[in-house]
Amino acid sequence: MPIDIQNILTQNKKLVDDMILKLLPESHEIHEIDLLYKMMRDYPSRPSKGLRSSLCVLTCQTFSGNIDDVLTTAAALELFQNWILIHDDIEDESELRRGKPVLQKTYGIPLSMNAGDALHGKMWNVLYKNREIIGKSMTLSVIQEFLQMISETTEGQHIELSYIQNRKWELNEDDYYTLCIKKTSWYTCITPHRLGLLLSRNKDLTPLDFVNFGEKLGIAFQITDDLLNLSSTSKYGKESFGDIYEGKRTLMLIHLLNSASNDDRDKILNILNKDRTKTTSEVSEIFSFMKKYNSIEYAQNKAKEFSQQALREFDNIFDDLPSSESKDNLRNIVNYMVLRDW
Amino acid sequence: MPIDIQNILTQNKKLVDDMILKLLPESHEIHEIDLLYKMMRDYPSRPSKGLRSSLCVLTCQTFSGNIDDVLTTAAALELFQNWILIHDDIEDESELRRGKPVLQKTYGIPLSMNAGDALHGKMWNVLYKNREIIGKSMTLSVIQEFLQMISETTEGQHIELSYIQNRKWELNEDDYYTLCIKKTSWYTCITPHRLGLLLSRNKDLTPLDFVNFGEKLGIAFQITDDLLNLSSTSKYGKESFGDIYEGKRTLMLIHLLNSASNDDRDKILNILNKDRTKTTSEVSEIFSFMKKYNSIEYAQNKAKEFSQQALREFDNIFDDLPSSESKDNLRNIVNYMVLRDW
Repeated sequence: MPIDIQNILTQNKKLVDDMILKLLPESHEIHEIDLLYKMMRDYPSRPSKGLRSSLCVLTCQTFSGNIDDVLTTAAALELFQNWILIHDDIEDESELRRGKPVLQKTYGIPLSMNAGDALHGKMWNVLYKNREIIGKSMTLSVIQEFLQMISETTEGQHIELSYIQNRKWELNEDDYYTLCIKKTSWYTCITPHRLGLLLSRNKDLTPLDFVNFGEKLGIAFQITDDLLNLSSTSKYGKESFGDIYEGKRTLMLIHLLNSASNDDRDKILNILNKDRTKTTSEVSEIFSFMKKYNSIEYAQNKAKEFSQQALREFDNIFDDLPSSESKDNLRNIVNYMVLRDW
Repeated sequence: MPIDIQNILTQNKKLVDDMILKLLPESHEIHEIDLLYKMMRDYPSRPSKGLRSSLCVLTCQTFSGNIDDVLTTAAALELFQNWILIHDDIEDESELRRGKPVLQKTYGIPLSMNAGDALHGKMWNVLYKNREIIGKSMTLSVIQEFLQMISETTEGQHIELSYIQNRKWELNEDDYYTLCIKKTSWYTCITPHRLGLLLSRNKDLTPLDFVNFGEKLGIAFQITDDLLNLSSTSKYGKESFGDIYEGKRTLMLIHLLNSASNDDRDKILNILNKDRTKTTSEVSEIFSFMKKYNSIEYAQNKAKEFSQQALREFDNIFDDLPSSESKDNLRNIVNYMVLRDW
């Protein structure tokens, strides 16, 4: 990551992390509950970029908002990501999260599921706290944005899980983009930006603000994320090729299935339908097919296309605003999100 | 169930159910999401007593409140129970819920977990809707009550799950009562009553209102619930003896372990530590030990004791209020909760 991007993210993340860890209790008079609190603090304490909270804070500042008005909401955005990751990791049977074993590997599924629910509850607690800072009306407006985000994200997760469960492979690119928008764009891009604008109190938030931009940015971000899963680096923090093991519907895989010869397609589907029992060499075989049919290059180009569209949208939205450090920082982060190396 | 109790509950439940099913969408333009919506409507559509919403509505009416002010909140209470049951059934590896297979038996764990999260999100949506009916301030006060309820309930669930996971059997009665209060009393008794009072706008809600009463009522309710699990009836809707299979810490089991001779205790622990691989005859053996050591009778007496205390508390709280149909109905339901046969 370029050092300037890292500095901006680190600075924002420190403010948000301090708030999150202050909001999560450490101990309870009932001994057993100490472990629940430890589990709730686990994912939030692991190294992460804090992208979503940074987008929210910087958007607020770019629209001349006050950082004190937006920090609690930014913390709630991070809590959202943390509880939903706990549940996603169980649902996807993932192995690693942020460089360490997923929560259920250490504590089992029942306790981890419940810790996710407790953290979800805590997220609403933080949003309720907002009323002391931004008043009752604004607190409820922030809640409304979270409601849409949760609805879109759980619908997206449902689509992805039902593809896997039903072994559905006949998918086209539009299916993939719809999935990305619901599963990724809303909580990673659209809602953080919308909340930043809302809390700036600079202009009224309308239903379509940041939707088109955020959809594109989220798609580019997700394609990049899926590409990174194919290039193992220790910084990445998830098992490499984990997506192929999981049978995750990525743009590369969809492109591959739609481009391969009948023979190759049969071979690929044979492996994919083995679910998690695929061998390492079978996973590599799929990767080789992706290279043979230029599926990786295809996805890289699509990521570039969507990121260029997103950046044009960004400039449309932000061009009228005066130059500022936060505006530059925001554009740099958005730019980095689709070009990142971890 | 006595016919008059059934009538009161049915009448309340119809109002709340109509609202819930109106709030849960049925179809979506993306075909896959139809199934998510179907799953979200599944538990709420199964037959249930609707106890918690009835307590809330009747308390509001007894304090001269308006039913239109309380119905949305009562619906959210039922949604709370439904999403948490979806997750509990996965965490406890239950088999039956309300007479039918648990959600994960039909749809698998990943989709069911996610449907629970989506329903949890929907619950907050319903609470957000409140602002159109009861205004912003009251909406936030209702939210505050839900926050405490979620916190207590997830802590209670954590305690219970960690007992099971750690095979912890050295428990005393107080451990059991603490567990009951967190896991059951808050969401079944304390919060529904508190919300009823709050929404009556009759007097200010203070932090201790209904806590002592609801703790006792919840304990009596939970002991009764656990006793019912030992007496199989088709009305009950869960697998009978399921609690013994699960190794659930009930008052009967705790009493048994603390009363049995060393020899018997060893035999019992041997069976209990087999987790879900216990045979039917091993489960029956534990049941026979419970009879041998009068553990069932002991629990029945304790349930009676707590229900008498709860009813005395009830009269302390409600005696000053004028007689009314809703007050009579409320007392009948509270009375029934600890004497019920399903």
